[in-house]
Amino acid sequence: MIDPLSKAATAADIARAVASGKVKASAVVEAALQRIAATEPTVNAFTDIVAERARKRAGELDAGRHLGPLAGVPFAVKNLFDIEGLPTRAGSKINVDGPKARRDGALVRKLEVAGAILVGGLNMGEYAYDFTGENAHYGPSRNPHDPTCMTGGSSGGSGAAVASGEVPLSLGSDTNGSIRVPSSLCGLFGLKPTYGRLSRAGSFPFVDAFDHLGPIARSTMDLALAFDAMQGWDPEDPVCTDRLADLTVLGLDEGIAGLRIAVAGDYFARGGEPEAFEAVETVAKALNATRRVVLPQAAAARAAAYVITAIEGAQLHLSRLKTRPQDFDPDTRERFMAGALLPGAWYVKAQRFRRQYRAAVLKLFEEVDIILAPATPRSAPKIGQKMMTLDGVDLPVRANLGLYTQPISFIGLPVVAVPTRAPGRMPIGVQVIAKPYNEQAALRVSAYLEKQGVCASTPA
Amino acid sequence: MIDPLSKAATAADIARAVASGKVKASAVVEAALQRIAATEPTVNAFTDIVAERARKRAGELDAGRHLGPLAGVPFAVKNLFDIEGLPTRAGSKINVDGPKARRDGALVRKLEVAGAILVGGLNMGEYAYDFTGENAHYGPSRNPHDPTCMTGGSSGGSGAAVASGEVPLSLGSDTNGSIRVPSSLCGLFGLKPTYGRLSRAGSFPFVDAFDHLGPIARSTMDLALAFDAMQGWDPEDPVCTDRLADLTVLGLDEGIAGLRIAVAGDYFARGGEPEAFEAVETVAKALNATRRVVLPQAAAARAAAYVITAIEGAQLHLSRLKTRPQDFDPDTRERFMAGALLPGAWYVKAQRFRRQYRAAVLKLFEEVDIILAPATPRSAPKIGQKMMTLDGVDLPVRANLGLYTQPISFIGLPVVAVPTRAPGRMPIGVQVIAKPYNEQAALRVSAYLEKQGVCASTPA
Repeated sequence: MIDPLSKAATAADIARAVASGKVKASAVVEAALQRIAATEPTVNAFTDIVAERARKRAGELDAGRHLGPLAGVPFAVKNLFDIEGLPTRAGSKINVDGPKARRDGALVRKLEVAGAILVGGLNMGEYAYDFTGENAHYGPSRNPHDPTCMTGGSSGGSGAAVASGEVPLSLGSDTNGSIRVPSSLCGLFGLKPTYGRLSRAGSFPFVDAFDHLGPIARSTMDLALAFDAMQGWDPEDPVCTDRLADLTVLGLDEGIAGLRIAVAGDYFARGGEPEAFEAVETVAKALNATRRVVLPQAAAARAAAYVITAIEGAQLHLSRLKTRPQDFDPDTRERFMAGALLPGAWYVKAQRFRRQYRAAVLKLFEEVDIILAPATPRSAPKIGQKMMTLDGVDLPVRANLGLYTQPISFIGLPVVAVPTRAPGRMPIGVQVIAKPYNEQAALRVSAYLEKQGVCASTPA
Repeated sequence: MIDPLSKAATAADIARAVASGKVKASAVVEAALQRIAATEPTVNAFTDIVAERARKRAGELDAGRHLGPLAGVPFAVKNLFDIEGLPTRAGSKINVDGPKARRDGALVRKLEVAGAILVGGLNMGEYAYDFTGENAHYGPSRNPHDPTCMTGGSSGGSGAAVASGEVPLSLGSDTNGSIRVPSSLCGLFGLKPTYGRLSRAGSFPFVDAFDHLGPIARSTMDLALAFDAMQGWDPEDPVCTDRLADLTVLGLDEGIAGLRIAVAGDYFARGGEPEAFEAVETVAKALNATRRVVLPQAAAARAAAYVITAIEGAQLHLSRLKTRPQDFDPDTRERFMAGALLPGAWYVKAQRFRRQYRAAVLKLFEEVDIILAPATPRSAPKIGQKMMTLDGVDLPVRANLGLYTQPISFIGLPVVAVPTRAPGRMPIGVQVIAKPYNEQAALRVSAYLEKQGVCASTPA
């Protein structure tokens, strides 16, 4: 366990400690400010320190309810990011005579919304036209591994501040290499995201067509955390319209090469009508997916999903069920009332099972990227229809259309439901299931199926 | 070309037409409202239509500067999403007696920030405890492919509105299958993202542990556009802290199985010091990457990157160069001045080359997922050092540290720079390069290298 107040603590270490109440954000910020005071004479990473602002923000965080994935993480930004109340130097002397920023840059705001705490602005090569980290006005930033050496640039201070342990996270910009070069020379992890992916609103530009902003950190996890917190379209990004034009390279039209695709067997290969399995077959064939995998105990997963659903749903609506039972939809009321009678021990057991099941299914994703399964056991029943025959067994419609979806949402996996349709038949869908946070892979498969004409949707 | 005013138009079709000025958002909204008026008697998808709000918003959009990736796209939401000024029905009769929503749900706001236009709230199974799309209070939503059939539920209206072409995009919720079931029965594409990935702030809950929100559409691209616009951490999400706990399943600890990894040859395998190639070798070996790929014309790409950088940079700073040349860093001034003298024809040629080069490199990504290259041609030079020897040639430090980064940022590819360090040496990094929007793959490789102990960063 890394001491969250030490210079070795990563952003994730700090956020976990702050979120769990083990340490106050204020203590983390004080420790960072002390390290900065002690280390600056050696590394010259900072041009601006906003200690009072940081202390105030930490106090608010410690008093508040919402902590965020970067709770209490001190960070600093290359001084081409706007910081409210300061001129945006961009490494220059000239800009200091310019107006003070009226508010923080977009990414500074996004990191603070996620709980991080800005402690200052960082040294950089003038106007970012630099690979060295030297600067005639503010002196060179110095490489913490050997202060007689360059940090690389132009995000030199962003490298020095993180490599020295002053802060676990910094932001830089990269037009031709200005995040990657200091990451390389300072021994850090740096992310230059896809062009256009992070908002450049409130940052001093260099070359519109090449300017990228991104994080520098001491771990991959910290890069991912920061990236996740900063991404999302921003109408104030000066080049946001480029992003629209770039949609063809969202990475969705690149086919399925490299994806390991399997069909879910056992539970997902029985209990439905032939049309459901034909739909999966059609999709699997188009994807050349011959492999089968078995999600262990899927039937139990569905049962456990129902137990938790019934009990939590009943709990949520209990007062309404007591006071206004006649105003419920009769079909819904019955289900909620039944849920209210289930013993709590079942709930505990279902939750315990869920953790095991989740671990077992995640293990499958070491071998495959995508799992295919039916979305529904049949196409649309008639309105008002109460019973349906599935695989020769008469079952209630209402409870059983979700036969194949429940064991998947139970553990939060991302799914794209894709439509298929046999001639003269009603449509029926297939689940394209991926591992957590891999929506991209499921969407790629969906786009491929659409391009191949296997899946299509036109308005009725 | 699909008519953006027709029911067949996807969200992408509409956004492109509105962004390019081919059609007004107001016209798109009117067309949608007319379709809704004509189609509702058949499908019963809507419980609330906010025509005036939609017209007002379209007018603002038509008058404004910022359009967004979903510019002018009419959408509607399952009526468990808060809509300012309306009670949040959640399919019930009881909730109608409750308070009116003070503001829109988080995802409604995010879609509108991206340019989309809310036109109404959609029918659903009461309190989302439903797979049929029937509702005793508001009548069943009807399947546009056969109105005597069910839509599936509980997001029944979300399926009916999109499958009938009333709107190209809707939002639903999925606790046990309520997005996937209507997608299946109505022949649509539906995305149930990873648990916790989209904010549930401002939506009526059902089962905390399983509730997911997500889009339904008629194309994969529309799902991706909507997902991209809606994602991002939200401090108001009632279960946002779960997300923090879920970081272990960010998908970064799953190894590299399935990723096709190659080393960049030719340009990226020469012109640097041995330590740069040793670093790549170390990383490649840990990843079992034996394949080589050649980025065609990388040297020309670097030259073109420099031409565009010099010319755009000079243009940006021209007035300052004229009025305050003495206040520039001398090293930067020289570079900007030189850029100001380059002929415009070079700029045009460089931009033209860029498009070809981009297409050629994207083609490589059909065969591989990740390309490895050095981050810098050597480890940190001494501060003040002007020249360095690379591969036997004396070269200026300042211009050449970005030798290997420039041809990559030139076309906006995502890169994670990962640190390596030989015993007793200064650190040096390696570029882990992915195709556009595939930061996830580069981060996975980075996490794997970190886990294997091949790449590490500790504060100096």
